[in-house]
Parts: sequence; structure tokens; C-alpha cells
Amino acid sequence: MRARVPASSANMGPGFDVLAVALELYIEVTVEPAPRLEVVTTGEGSHLPADDSHPAVVIAAEAAGTDRLRVGVHSDIPLGRGLGSSAALALAAAAAAGAQDPFAWGVRVDGHPENAAASAFGGLVTATTVEGVAVWRRLALDPDLVFVAVIPDRELLTADARTVLAPTVTRADAEFNLGRLGLLLAGLADRHQLVAEAGDDRLHQDARAQLFPESTPILAGLRQAGALTSFWSGAGTTLLAVCDRTAGSTVREAGEALLATHQVTGRVALLETAREGITLST
Amino acid sequence: MRARVPASSANMGPGFDVLAVALELYIEVTVEPAPRLEVVTTGEGSHLPADDSHPAVVIAAEAAGTDRLRVGVHSDIPLGRGLGSSAALALAAAAAAGAQDPFAWGVRVDGHPENAAASAFGGLVTATTVEGVAVWRRLALDPDLVFVAVIPDRELLTADARTVLAPTVTRADAEFNLGRLGLLLAGLADRHQLVAEAGDDRLHQDARAQLFPESTPILAGLRQAGALTSFWSGAGTTLLAVCDRTAGSTVREAGEALLATHQVTGRVALLETAREGITLST
Repeated sequence: MRARVPASSANMGPGFDVLAVALELYIEVTVEPAPRLEVVTTGEGSHLPADDSHPAVVIAAEAAGTDRLRVGVHSDIPLGRGLGSSAALALAAAAAAGAQDPFAWGVRVDGHPENAAASAFGGLVTATTVEGVAVWRRLALDPDLVFVAVIPDRELLTADARTVLAPTVTRADAEFNLGRLGLLLAGLADRHQLVAEAGDDRLHQDARAQLFPESTPILAGLRQAGALTSFWSGAGTTLLAVCDRTAGSTVREAGEALLATHQVTGRVALLETAREGITLST
Repeated sequence: MRARVPASSANMGPGFDVLAVALELYIEVTVEPAPRLEVVTTGEGSHLPADDSHPAVVIAAEAAGTDRLRVGVHSDIPLGRGLGSSAALALAAAAAAGAQDPFAWGVRVDGHPENAAASAFGGLVTATTVEGVAVWRRLALDPDLVFVAVIPDRELLTADARTVLAPTVTRADAEFNLGRLGLLLAGLADRHQLVAEAGDDRLHQDARAQLFPESTPILAGLRQAGALTSFWSGAGTTLLAVCDRTAGSTVREAGEALLATHQVTGRVALLETAREGITLST
């Protein structure tokens, strides 16, 4: 079977570990019976060994109960850039291998349910763990919002990005994020209600900016160029701008100029929301 | 002029200081020119001195620029019970005295914008302070949700209720509230999506329960009786249950039984959302 799964952008400023949106940038995994394991990988991540150590193969073999498989992986989702590639790969591999609940595989591999929920079900979602169980819910998203992803070439591992986060926070910062999350969800539901400050955060972005100092002026520059708001995508290094559809191209061009100005190599993509999550075909 | 303003319930579990809903329980203030100050107060709060020290009179006189006024106050909103009576009174007095921006008066008197926003504009709102300015936004609220307010006779002053709150919190607790807030907003927009745990909180309710230990079993009992979720209303002592319209009466009866069981004197009200905020008439 063939499974196509969209990328996702998690956190979205104040929604640390609880908010994510699916984006039209895809990974595709095909799994078919074969006399012996064959692995073909193309696109992003194709530098990984094409053998039984490949994460798609590990999951497909476990889900199918055999490694006598032909596994094909093609990805347009860059790795280690905060676009949910590991969750999307796990979902796609599990779904293509016939798993009944690909979402559970995505949650298990990724550790956090928000990327997996967005990629599995599409659109804007909130997700968290309740008594050990991943719970996700769909949230309203204005259809005239588009996203500009500024994707640096440099990677930032989620594990490294987490070590810089202090185990305690001030009550004021916790309340700051709650207030911004309320404004953000109101604004994502209706873009006319979206204020730039709704994308601000005090729980993770400042600490992570130590690892990527150029992020701060680039995020500000995207807003100045017409983005309604902007924030880190996942644990970075991708930076995401939320735009009215009419401003998308202008903000994309500004993103390219900002990368050049700050001497950060990378690329910029203007992306639609992926309204569908996992798509299966034979 | 006459101004009618609804009560409000803030916090709503995880939405500490940022979420509030307007409820159909009203305060009415009339302000008219008079040869000298006359004050008549009836209903809740009528034990306050009916003179120039009354908060409605202070605000009306400042907004009108004179104290040669006849001020009438009638309230059905109990004081010091977490139903936003001080914000509602400020809004009503300012509006009845002809203030151009009653919301600003409500924010100034109450210190927090969420009660004032709900009472001024009606419905479900999120509000916070951005660079010193109160910003509020409307959120979707399922029209088939109703609220059961369990209103103990005992008061709890907001100031006292705040002193029990620690200045730092764990990152895990901050994230817990963000995750629950996401689930709660999804569930308030569509009651079929509302899970009981969406009303849970780790930033204020546990600490405040020290001041009102019976709150914990009453909140749990309301859920067991059919409430979709339950939480403290503001800084208490009112406890609020969110119900599908079809379960409202059952939960109200359960609330009365819970007060009796826990030997808490008080009353229980089944309340609709107040869709309108300030209503002015002459």
C-alpha cells in the first residue's frame, strides 16, 4: 500500500507542545510484500542507510509482522528542521504497512501527540496527553490563511532544543502563554482577529534562540513584511509566518531577503494548510 | 441612563486569567441628574453604604464629572463569589453615566480584562494584556451548552485567593494548562468534543482548594452527575459546571444535593450564556 502524509508545524508560538497545523509538504511511503527486504529512498532523508535500520523499515516491519517487504520512501519534508518529519514518516510507514491505528504509531515514535495528530488528520489541531492517552481535537482555521516557512539548511535536533529549557517557569510566563494562546486560537479561526503578539511565547523560543540567534530578527522581519504573526516551527530551525493569502508572495520574498541579510543558507516555501491527513492508495 | 450588564465566570479551569464567559445574571445601574447625590441599592450588595463611598457612585461621579446624581443599583450577582460582580458593577456604572469606553473602566477597576470583556461584550471571550493594553477576542461557544453555578454563601476575596498562588510553577504544570486550554476551547466550540479533563487546571485551583476544601468533591460530583466538565468560577467560591442543555436540570439538582452532602450553605443556578454584554436604555 501507499501512504501519503503531510508535514506539520507544532508549538506555533504560545502553544508549546499542544498545537500543530498540517502543511502541504509530503512524505510518501509504499510497502509491498517481497521475497526479501528491499529499500529505496529518494528526496529528503535519502542519505540515511537504505537497510533494516531505516526508521520507515523498522516501523513497517513491526506493523506488517515481517521484513520481507519492498519499502519505498520519498520525502519532501526536510529532517531535523521542526517540520514533523519523524512523526510523518512513522505515520506513513505504519499506514502503508496496514497498521489499524497509524496515529498511535506516530505518537509512540514521536513522543508528543501534536505533530502526529496534525499529520494524521490534517488541518489545525490541539493535542495533549490525558492520563497517559493521546487526545486530540480539531480547531477552526481560517481558509484564507497561508504559511511561509523559512527553512534554514542547518539542523537542530529536538533533543538538543529541549535541553535548554528550564524545568520551572514563572507564573507570569505561564500566564503569558495562556493569554497568547487564547488570542492565537481566536485569530487562527478568523484572520481578521489575529494580532501579531498572539504568536509570542515565553516558554521555549527565547531559550532556543540561543542555539539560532538569527531567528529573532528573522521572525520580526517576517511580521514587518506583512505576516500576521510568526514563530518557531516545532523545535526549529524552521521559522513560520502566518499570512493572509493576499500577502503570501510578499512575505515569501521577504523571507528570502531575510535569509540573505542574516547570511543563513536555506530556502523559503509558501505552503497551504493540508486539510487531509493520511491518504492511502494501492 | 440605565445600563444592564451580565455576570461573568473567569478562568474556567485551565484558562487562568485569560478566559471568561458571560452569564444571564444581571446588575442594573441607573444614573440621572439630580439636585444632590441620592443612592438607592437593592438586591445583592445592598448592605454596602448607600452613599458616596459606594463603588458605583465613585465610578458614576468620575465618569459624569459631577456627583449631583441619582444613582440606582440593583444586582442579582452575589459579591465575592467569583462571578465578576466588581467588573460588572464598574461597567454598568460607567456606561449608565455616559462613559465612552465602559470596558476601559471595567478593566481599570477589576485589574484583569477577562471578566470585563465577557460582561461588556457577552459570550465567551479570551482577554489578556499586550504591552499594557487590554486585548480581547471572541471565541466560539456551542449554543447548546448551559452552565450550572453552585454558589456557596461563604465569600472568598480575590486578594486572599491570590496570595496562595506560588510565583513559580513547573514547566510540566504550565504545559498541562496549555494542553487543557486547547482541549477546552475545542470543546466549548463543539460540545460533542468536550472531554471532562479539559476543565482541569494545575495553576490555581489546587492552591485555592485549601481555602475551600469541599470544592474538590463538589467539582467531581458535578461531573459524575452528567456535567461535561467543571471548574472554579473566577477565584471562587462559585463552582461552575458546563452542561449539555439536556442535562442542565439534572446537574442543577445534583449541585443542590452536593451542597447538602458537604454541609455547605448556598444556592444553585442554571444559567444561560449571556450573548449580549452591556445593554443601554433610557
